[in-house]
Amino acid sequence: MIRFDCDYNQSAHPRILARLQEIAGEQHPGYGTDTRTEQARAYIRTAINAPEADVHFLVGGTQANAVLIGAVLRPHQGVISADTGHIATHETGAIEATGHKVLILPGTEGKLTAAQIQQAYDNHQNDPTHEHDVQPGMVYISHPTESGTVYTLAELEAISKVCRACHLPLMLDGARLGYGLAAHGTDVTLPDIARLCDMFYIGGTKVGALFGEAVVIQNPRYQPDFRYLIKRHGGLLAKGFLLGVQFECLFEDGLYFQLGRHGVGEAMYLRQGLLVAGLPLQYDTGTNQQFPRVPDALAERLAKDFAFARWEKPNEQESVIRLCTSWATQREEVDALIAALG
Amino acid sequence: MIRFDCDYNQSAHPRILARLQEIAGEQHPGYGTDTRTEQARAYIRTAINAPEADVHFLVGGTQANAVLIGAVLRPHQGVISADTGHIATHETGAIEATGHKVLILPGTEGKLTAAQIQQAYDNHQNDPTHEHDVQPGMVYISHPTESGTVYTLAELEAISKVCRACHLPLMLDGARLGYGLAAHGTDVTLPDIARLCDMFYIGGTKVGALFGEAVVIQNPRYQPDFRYLIKRHGGLLAKGFLLGVQFECLFEDGLYFQLGRHGVGEAMYLRQGLLVAGLPLQYDTGTNQQFPRVPDALAERLAKDFAFARWEKPNEQESVIRLCTSWATQREEVDALIAALG
Amino acid sequence: MIRFDCDYNQSAHPRILARLQEIAGEQHPGYGTDTRTEQARAYIRTAINAPEADVHFLVGGTQANAVLIGAVLRPHQGVISADTGHIATHETGAIEATGHKVLILPGTEGKLTAAQIQQAYDNHQNDPTHEHDVQPGMVYISHPTESGTVYTLAELEAISKVCRACHLPLMLDGARLGYGLAAHGTDVTLPDIARLCDMFYIGGTKVGALFGEAVVIQNPRYQPDFRYLIKRHGGLLAKGFLLGVQFECLFEDGLYFQLGRHGVGEAMYLRQGLLVAGLPLQYDTGTNQQFPRVPDALAERLAKDFAFARWEKPNEQESVIRLCTSWATQREEVDALIAALG
Amino acid sequence: MIRFDCDYNQSAHPRILARLQEIAGEQHPGYGTDTRTEQARAYIRTAINAPEADVHFLVGGTQANAVLIGAVLRPHQGVISADTGHIATHETGAIEATGHKVLILPGTEGKLTAAQIQQAYDNHQNDPTHEHDVQPGMVYISHPTESGTVYTLAELEAISKVCRACHLPLMLDGARLGYGLAAHGTDVTLPDIARLCDMFYIGGTKVGALFGEAVVIQNPRYQPDFRYLIKRHGGLLAKGFLLGVQFECLFEDGLYFQLGRHGVGEAMYLRQGLLVAGLPLQYDTGTNQQFPRVPDALAERLAKDFAFARWEKPNEQESVIRLCTSWATQREEVDALIAALG
Repeated sequence: MIRFDCDYNQSAHPRILARLQEIAGEQHPGYGTDTRTEQARAYIRTAINAPEADVHFLVGGTQANAVLIGAVLRPHQGVISADTGHIATHETGAIEATGHKVLILPGTEGKLTAAQIQQAYDNHQNDPTHEHDVQPGMVYISHPTESGTVYTLAELEAISKVCRACHLPLMLDGARLGYGLAAHGTDVTLPDIARLCDMFYIGGTKVGALFGEAVVIQNPRYQPDFRYLIKRHGGLLAKGFLLGVQFECLFEDGLYFQLGRHGVGEAMYLRQGLLVAGLPLQYDTGTNQQFPRVPDALAERLAKDFAFARWEKPNEQESVIRLCTSWATQREEVDALIAALG
Repeated sequence: MIRFDCDYNQSAHPRILARLQEIAGEQHPGYGTDTRTEQARAYIRTAINAPEADVHFLVGGTQANAVLIGAVLRPHQGVISADTGHIATHETGAIEATGHKVLILPGTEGKLTAAQIQQAYDNHQNDPTHEHDVQPGMVYISHPTESGTVYTLAELEAISKVCRACHLPLMLDGARLGYGLAAHGTDVTLPDIARLCDMFYIGGTKVGALFGEAVVIQNPRYQPDFRYLIKRHGGLLAKGFLLGVQFECLFEDGLYFQLGRHGVGEAMYLRQGLLVAGLPLQYDTGTNQQFPRVPDALAERLAKDFAFARWEKPNEQESVIRLCTSWATQREEVDALIAALG
Repeated sequence: MIRFDCDYNQSAHPRILARLQEIAGEQHPGYGTDTRTEQARAYIRTAINAPEADVHFLVGGTQANAVLIGAVLRPHQGVISADTGHIATHETGAIEATGHKVLILPGTEGKLTAAQIQQAYDNHQNDPTHEHDVQPGMVYISHPTESGTVYTLAELEAISKVCRACHLPLMLDGARLGYGLAAHGTDVTLPDIARLCDMFYIGGTKVGALFGEAVVIQNPRYQPDFRYLIKRHGGLLAKGFLLGVQFECLFEDGLYFQLGRHGVGEAMYLRQGLLVAGLPLQYDTGTNQQFPRVPDALAERLAKDFAFARWEKPNEQESVIRLCTSWATQREEVDALIAALG
Repeated sequence: MIRFDCDYNQSAHPRILARLQEIAGEQHPGYGTDTRTEQARAYIRTAINAPEADVHFLVGGTQANAVLIGAVLRPHQGVISADTGHIATHETGAIEATGHKVLILPGTEGKLTAAQIQQAYDNHQNDPTHEHDVQPGMVYISHPTESGTVYTLAELEAISKVCRACHLPLMLDGARLGYGLAAHGTDVTLPDIARLCDMFYIGGTKVGALFGEAVVIQNPRYQPDFRYLIKRHGGLLAKGFLLGVQFECLFEDGLYFQLGRHGVGEAMYLRQGLLVAGLPLQYDTGTNQQFPRVPDALAERLAKDFAFARWEKPNEQESVIRLCTSWATQREEVDALIAALG
């Protein structure tokens, strides 16, 4: 079985495993107050070109989403999200668990537009009985989205502008940010994201780390007391230095970006193979997730040797499947998959 | 600086680090559905002598407490805890975040008694306006407690009996369970705990793992859908196999118990040194936490070379400090500390 | 200004106001433990033909919805509702405030079908990653709906059957139940509702009372401790006897049904006037809410003398408005409105 | 049976009942947007001498507490309260239901001191691991307290000063404020309270209204969007004009103060009778609650003809009971009680 079902089925990049061995004898204070974590924070502030940003390391994405959104919203507010947003679909109600509604808007290949956000804001403001509705309090976007797409810089700038005009903090879920930054044809950089968002996170779990998401808070309004909120959610890792060490490895010399490029490179190679095999792609994605539409018979045959996710069922004879590459994907694995398409 | 401030300041036992290297090339499905995690579950079911128990692996203790307590209580119920219980003092309101009150009772060296629980239950039942009070819905105990003490088997059996008679599920926080099972003079075994509690967890973070708590649910009433609850709390680790691998290492041949004995052995050696130095012990503990009362001048001097926690301030001249040993403590570190007492 | 904007813009039926005067000197224990409230409970048990039902009196509908739904769902579960359901649209996130997601399905004129519920249940069950989604835990329907429509007995029976087969408790929001029971052409009776639902409430606020909703819990599983849940939500009225007295008035000799018939009678008279005036009706409703589509010029003209709600904007030239009659509507008010249509 | 068990066992002052009759034919828009409610707000702003204050009318005290505290606290914060505070003891966890811990301090006859609050604040600030504890976020006091006592102006001023210095908003629960303002020997006025607190409420339920608490928000920081928060909690009464009408009656010409004086007058008369009968008073209270310590035999005898609350059991032979007078207490009722003491 070769796994293309997700981008988190192998442990970690060899450098991280080696570093864990190297620091085995070190003693550190708990909860991320150690020097290695401080070093990792410094690397990230440099990478995002934002020396004043607060950087926290959390274990996973659902946790990061719940803590960030819970930190921003007042009780009567909700978070605007595309209907395909991870918080709207695959977190077992983690946002609602914090008392907040996810206000969904129909996404286009996973993305929202600035105009949609403005419209949602205006609709609420103009409703004479708006006190009976959940008030939009922030905007959540994913980059890459759950459909593998990325925003263009112009799109992100337009969204950011609307959000600031409407006083809606903008949060970007970067669980797969490494693959987004390396996306085929993208013009969005990490400093752009830091400049345009109020808060975001840089996913490690899916890009070479054992686990970990680097949460960046740019808006000073949401910086105070954030560690309390992490702890309250059970997200303050006792051995926080383990998160620091990993992000140190990923950001000390650009490994994170290199791993992103590797994953995307394999995905583009796979994409070419899919197209050659005549399989239409449901979403036009330049990142590590590919969504071919395949005959069910082919899907059944592939399932014997390859793991993948069944995404949609557009008709009786075909399925849209999701194939993920990652930092760990090897060329021969992709070749085997392409060979099996024939 | 030699650290005795906590039992989680080094990464992990060498076997775990080596195992992570060994499995680097393995591919696993996500979220703990892999075979290594299944193996770890089997080892634990054997160790606790409870083949029907459900076993889940969570990342940390606060998370485990919040998920378990949230799983048991109905909205109007609270959890009984000693006033020193971790959930009552050091979790930034994680239990209240799930909508529940912690109903504190005065502990004795961190422990509750069966009689106290019965009394609290009776007081509520007999109060004619009890609908205006939070209803006791379960009981939380720590073993070892936050004061380093352990329950005797007779005490645990009495508590369990009262809890069952009052329909109050009993939960045991075993964040330091390895040191409790190895406690000097204890007569409580892991199968005893599994037999007497409705749910508990076996702490890995403080006993040799990078991170991880093995949650055991004995009471079938709370077994269904528990994975939903973990996910909702953001606690379902994407690379769940990392938890499985670690507990596999700890339970495949008794390493967990051996690490507990090591930590307690060093603590008993330290304890002897403290007594020889004429320092009274605030709590009479046979586990890895020691609480000497030291003159403030000595505390200041020690603080230059040793990390420890300041626990209480009983009077103007003295402090109670907490010294933790662990699976990683080396004899020469303890010797250095003892030498510094003179 | 004559008000057709809602069905709660006048205080209470004269009998209720008179009864309040009569009992002015009476002393009662608090929180609904008085004899008048007990009498009201007895009247309602008789009216619904369910001697074993629990009956509680709450102040308002949003409160009743939040307490009932919070009482039923486990933390990882959500409540299925039509997209137009009051809990999904006009309660400022009151359900999410209890930690639960509203799982919306597209309604047809405000109604769900048994097949939709079955499908939603099956979709969840069959999803291999369902632990990452909110689990459907109960079903919420309104009768009449927010669009003024009512379920037929056959529809209700089909929904109830599916709900029981899927172990999804069925809750009916009867904020306007009086008008539903008197709906033109309905074959659903109060005992039918009590027989087919696990819980529901009989709205008083909109049907002659100053305020108050009679919550009926048929399913014994959700009966214990319900008063705790009311109190926890701040819904246990200190002078609970005020609720008892009002429902005593409404149910001692059928006043509730008579008021429902009056409101519907005036609505049917209004409906005839709307049709004669050539105004199409957006929803085909036999209850006290009528939804004509009117030219915007007419809407503006009417707004000078009549209060109504603007419901939808189907096109540039027209609006759907909502006109409510009630227990208090007088024929001359309706005549004035009809005259103004010309 | 003559009832001294609480101050909410009769419906409402005759003026309120009469006013309800008078307005029976009036039509009002919903949710407190009507002119009568606006008039009531104006009366209250005048009475508290705070023209910029926001005034909202809620149905009950537990609801008011939960909405106000939930409006102020960030997720990781808790509310400081005396251990006897209503929110700490008799609201079935309504505050915890909003996700917040009640941080109790030992009260003295129900009261907190400025020094205690300062100490609690300092303790938290100075704790090096304070991120692991709930952060104090506001202060809750009751006036009168649950023990019938009142703060002096000097005490209130000292508390207010500390709260402002520590950025802890101060909230005053005035469920019995009418009796506090009329308390024997008090020097605290309604404008004092408005000046010294960030928010408070003026209780109607216990002082002549059918129900209702007038919530006053002085601090502009907590004024925006408060109606959303009321609605989210299910506390926005559909027929909000019923609240407006009642507070109009109470504040149009000082009826509220007069009712408070009446209740206190009867309590002072009762108090004299208790002292003459040789019964010691547990708390020295100048308000409508009296707490005599009585032999159990006397308590049993009284219980045949009088309703009262059993408060404490200081020893085997005696009980502390609570006797409440109210706006509705008649002199002959008190005389009957005094006569029964002999």
